[in-house]
Parts: sequence; structure tokens; C-alpha cells
Amino acid sequence: MTFFDLSQPLTDGCPNCPAHPPIKLPRIADHAANDWRMEEFHMASHSGTHLDAPLHKLAGGPSIDSFPLEAFAGPVRVADLAGECGSDYAIDSTVLKRALDGTSLEKTIVLLNTGWGQKRAASDEWLYHSPFLHPDGAAWLVAQKIKGVGIDHFSIGGTRDPDNSRTHEILLGAGVWVIEELCFRPGWREALAGAYFQALPLLLPGFSGSPCRAVLIRA
Amino acid sequence: MTFFDLSQPLTDGCPNCPAHPPIKLPRIADHAANDWRMEEFHMASHSGTHLDAPLHKLAGGPSIDSFPLEAFAGPVRVADLAGECGSDYAIDSTVLKRALDGTSLEKTIVLLNTGWGQKRAASDEWLYHSPFLHPDGAAWLVAQKIKGVGIDHFSIGGTRDPDNSRTHEILLGAGVWVIEELCFRPGWREALAGAYFQALPLLLPGFSGSPCRAVLIRA
Repeated sequence: MTFFDLSQPLTDGCPNCPAHPPIKLPRIADHAANDWRMEEFHMASHSGTHLDAPLHKLAGGPSIDSFPLEAFAGPVRVADLAGECGSDYAIDSTVLKRALDGTSLEKTIVLLNTGWGQKRAASDEWLYHSPFLHPDGAAWLVAQKIKGVGIDHFSIGGTRDPDNSRTHEILLGAGVWVIEELCFRPGWREALAGAYFQALPLLLPGFSGSPCRAVLIRA
Repeated sequence: MTFFDLSQPLTDGCPNCPAHPPIKLPRIADHAANDWRMEEFHMASHSGTHLDAPLHKLAGGPSIDSFPLEAFAGPVRVADLAGECGSDYAIDSTVLKRALDGTSLEKTIVLLNTGWGQKRAASDEWLYHSPFLHPDGAAWLVAQKIKGVGIDHFSIGGTRDPDNSRTHEILLGAGVWVIEELCFRPGWREALAGAYFQALPLLLPGFSGSPCRAVLIRA
């Protein structure tokens, strides 16, 4: 069994959605003074590589622990858009149909590689002008009966309404979970062949989402 | 593929090692006021179901991200001690040899089921009188060339020194990672047959440990 990591590193003060609290990960104990090293988390449940449950956007929607763990693992397809995603690029159904080449997506996990995982920085561009899944693309993916969908940026719907809210509502309203802040490192294409995707949430009863480790696994 | 969960739930104020900061998981945004639900983490890197890297106890030791992900998945053996673990019970090499029946443990992940995952409460007994892996048992497991070891309590070495420190030093000093706060729910025995264990850390560069989702997986 081999793993290929699709996660972004969580570090103290790392770039983050500006609508969320800053990520603070201080060291709170160390060997010289305490005989042990330990760190502390101060961050939102939607920081770093993380899953969105419907409850994130929809009042009364299912929480992250209400999904069986089997929901977060399975066959994966990648829409490889890294070469074309400029600032504010809208990934709509036309883009997706071309990138995903017409074979059935039913029960698959669809990942959008925009290339912006490599641009992660607290820059105006990364924070406010990311490529995003247009509501039209979200509706098309739901119609294909996908299992989950991911992107290599902190918001699958971008940072402006109504598109951001609509894209989340369409996906989450259909019970399609979302994973954000993926990172497609060199080698991912080779790792994809014969692999399945997995990203298990922490066990957080009633939560609207969870940090996770996103991986490709080859048995 | 089916999953069986061996994790403890993380909830606001849940029982925790008294030497660590309290676990605070407040809701920081909700639909009525903010259009979104979001929670925040305030907790140590060794809270809830979590992995210890050598750096937790050993200055200069490997951090959690220095292990390949393959280290955190593999064949599993359970020492089923739930029927015998009273307060302050020392799990030594004699106990382990009997419970693990003599077959090779090389490259396996050994989990200690003390039954105390079911006793999780902020009680004097759970906080200060847990069963623990005695340093003699830790040394024996290292000699068997195991890959990792876990227990269903927040400290594999218990809560008193020198045993707690020595058990951690022996395991972590040999490069054997530790997982703590497992929970063996009803059904785990049936789920174990033909399954492997997996508990991937978050991607936390330089960290001494990480929360994780611990599972049995049957392909």
C-alpha cells in the first residue's frame, strides 16, 4: 500500500480564508522546561485541508459525523485545469465536460486541480481572486451523481456572493461533501493511476466540517 | 471497503489529560447571524485520539511529519485485556506474551484494549488510575520489532513517573509511534478479522503529534 499526499501543511500563521480566525499553532511545552514537547491548536474547523458537511451552509443539514466513513473514500477523477485557471476563472459545466471526458462520474469523487494549491500565500490574488466552481458547474456535478468534490483552494465557490453561497448550497444541499485546500504536488498524475481517494474527518459530533489528511492510496 | 471506527469523539469540554489545556470547541459562526456554521478548536496537539511522534518526549527526535504515511497503516494485532484491567494495572511483558499468543509481531501495529475507552470521564479513576504499558512491556514490544502501538486511554504509560516517561522513551526512542485515546466499541472483534489499521496524522510540519481518525479497514 502506498500513499500520495494531497494535503496542505498546517503551520502557525499559514495563509487562510480571511473570513476565518487566523491559524495559531503555538508550542506550549518543551523538553528543557517541561520534559515534553506539545503544541496547541487555535483555528477554525474549516482551516487548512478540510471537509465541509452540509451543516456548514445549511441550517439543519447533516453534520460531518453523520456520514458513514465509507463516504469519504472511493474512486477519484481529477479535472486537470492547472494550465488554464487564471484569476477569477469560473469552472462551469462546459469546462467540466471537456476536462472529464464524458465517462460516468457516478459515485466518484471529483477533484478540481486549478494549480492554485501551489500559489498558496497571503496575497491579494490568492485570497480574493481564486478560480472557483461556478453554480452551473456545481449543478452539473450533482446531476452526475458524484459522491464528493474537492478543490485546491480554501473556497470551492470562490470568495464572492452570490456564486460562493450558491455553489455551496447546490453541492451540500444534494448531500455532496466538499473538500478544500488540496494541494497537487509534482507526481500526482503518476500516483493517480489505479489509486482511490480518501480523506477521513476527525470524530467531531455535530460539527459542520473537519480538518483531514487527503491522500491517494494505491493498494 | 468498510471502516470500523476506533476513535473517541472530540467534544467541547470532553475528558482530557489534566496536564493538557482543556478542550474548547466553541461555535463561532451560525446560519442566522452569519449565513454559515463554523466551529473553532482550542486544544493541544495530543488531545482526543492522537498520535505521538518521538519528538513528543525526545528532544531532537523525529516529528510526526517525518514518518512516511505508510508507517501509519498496516497489519494489526489487539491485546484484548478488557476483562482484567483494573485501576493502575501494569501491562508488562508477561501479560503481553499471554495476550498476543506467541506469533510474530514484526511490522505489526499492536493495540492494547484495556476496556477503559468505555470509562472515559473526568473521574479520579480515569484521570489518575488508568491501566498502563509498563516499561518492561514497552521494551518487549520494541524487541518484537512492532511498527506502532496504541491504547484506549490518554496516556500509554499511565500518569506517574518514572513509568510514564520511561515507557514513552523506550517506544519513541526506538522509532515506534504511539496512538492514544482509542475506543473499542462493541463490534470491534468482528471488524478485526481481515482488517488493517490506519490512523493518518494531519500534515503538521515539525509537530510532536497530531489528532487523527483511527480505523480498521477491510478491503
